[in-house]
Amino acid sequence: MVYFLGVDAGGSHCRSRLTDQNGRILGSAEIGAANARIGIANLWPLLMQVTELACQEAGLNKNDWSSVHAAFGIAGLSRPGLQRALEEMPSPFAAIRYTGDDEIANIGAHRGHDGAILILGTGSIAHIRIDGKSETLGGYGFPISDEASGAWLGLESIRHSLRAYDGRIQKTIFTERVIHHFSDDILGLVAWMDAATATDYALFAPWVIEAGIEGDPVAYSIIQKAVAYIENFIEVIFQKGVARCCLMGGLAAPFMPWLSNHISCKLSPSQGDALDGALILSGLKF
Amino acid sequence: MVYFLGVDAGGSHCRSRLTDQNGRILGSAEIGAANARIGIANLWPLLMQVTELACQEAGLNKNDWSSVHAAFGIAGLSRPGLQRALEEMPSPFAAIRYTGDDEIANIGAHRGHDGAILILGTGSIAHIRIDGKSETLGGYGFPISDEASGAWLGLESIRHSLRAYDGRIQKTIFTERVIHHFSDDILGLVAWMDAATATDYALFAPWVIEAGIEGDPVAYSIIQKAVAYIENFIEVIFQKGVARCCLMGGLAAPFMPWLSNHISCKLSPSQGDALDGALILSGLKF
Repeated sequence: MVYFLGVDAGGSHCRSRLTDQNGRILGSAEIGAANARIGIANLWPLLMQVTELACQEAGLNKNDWSSVHAAFGIAGLSRPGLQRALEEMPSPFAAIRYTGDDEIANIGAHRGHDGAILILGTGSIAHIRIDGKSETLGGYGFPISDEASGAWLGLESIRHSLRAYDGRIQKTIFTERVIHHFSDDILGLVAWMDAATATDYALFAPWVIEAGIEGDPVAYSIIQKAVAYIENFIEVIFQKGVARCCLMGGLAAPFMPWLSNHISCKLSPSQGDALDGALILSGLKF
Repeated sequence: MVYFLGVDAGGSHCRSRLTDQNGRILGSAEIGAANARIGIANLWPLLMQVTELACQEAGLNKNDWSSVHAAFGIAGLSRPGLQRALEEMPSPFAAIRYTGDDEIANIGAHRGHDGAILILGTGSIAHIRIDGKSETLGGYGFPISDEASGAWLGLESIRHSLRAYDGRIQKTIFTERVIHHFSDDILGLVAWMDAATATDYALFAPWVIEAGIEGDPVAYSIIQKAVAYIENFIEVIFQKGVARCCLMGGLAAPFMPWLSNHISCKLSPSQGDALDGALILSGLKF
């Protein structure tokens, strides 16, 4: 028997899927965050744990691992030295490959064919794949990058709400809601900022969307700015020469209705998820 | 004899000025940063040190301090509990007052009369004083506030340069200069961001101004955005009912030529500095 294993190791969860050579799913598992930021000493045991859980479900023991062809997509793999450090670990598998989590998402979305994805989540990043070569746009992190992401929407929400609090722009139901969230305590908001991460800022993203739908002028202006970034992202992606582009991530569906028709009609539905992409990379033929 | 002491305690330096009752300067001193962020246990000895240095220059010993009327303008004084903690310290002076460093700058700029200032430095804040009552706009910190400040210009510089690096906007001499500063190493830039403070971002502010003067289209677009914020700040300031407004801080002069005539003609030159303001607050009649 030959087995295929795909792993998607990201900032909020780490998932695995094990199949036979016909693509029949034999086992799967999900654990918490397992990305490059935690360092290889912490990362490696988690990758092995999520592998073992899927293998256990499939009834495989460690002796069978030598028949497993594995591919891991890891968030933040571009951190200096990480790829080499992973490749130097003793592999229990028949074959093993590592790449970024954005690349497996792209491979999955287009079932291994050339294409591009724009992921709109806590961060934002575009991944383009032509003739097996990868390129990314954005995704350099918050606050220097990741326009139109959840974190970016959150930062814009707070910036606009403070301007409204000052009387520098109009107050709206939306800006008042943001300030009320901090109990109208601006010093408390400033103290919150001192420790706030991209994930903390992204908590405000659904509020912007919701208020935009209700016609709140400030939320609407933030959404329009995000839409301009997203449409620019998509136009540049197609200029690179790909035939297909998928919008992915938690903010993909909320933003879809705001895009202009001539942009949204160019987008394709995804043909698979990131674990499909990892399985294709491991050698599975779909 | 009666003496007057003014102290301006800020994020980059702390200055003192001692005068007699005719406003004749008897002594002055300057030490490094002494603001609210370092906590009262660290702040108080620095305030006493900068006082003692000015008094030494004037030939005053500690017995004479009971004839000194003092006022301290302190950056970040609005931090919860700080004002009260300072007021509870045993005062060696005849009288002592504490306020924000923005307020003494405003009092100094208008020689104690009602007025407003817009400070454009590492951060940006407007301070308005009408009938002795104070109000501020902006100044909540970076990145949630302080539009058109040095830190804001720096963040916009990096954001635009990364977009240009991606091919999402045009590359220019300015965006290339920013990326070259990081040795064209985007991962290095991301690592820099992880630890970058407002002061670090503000280092790019002179580059934006310089490139804008040379006609660089990206730098120009950032400056135009900053100018829109500055003009909005100034318009809102006058709507509050003040007769005079001064532009202050290290970016005041660089931005002056970019403002439209109908805005810049409303601005007044400053009649004094922040130490003048502190001295007025301490009771000195100019």
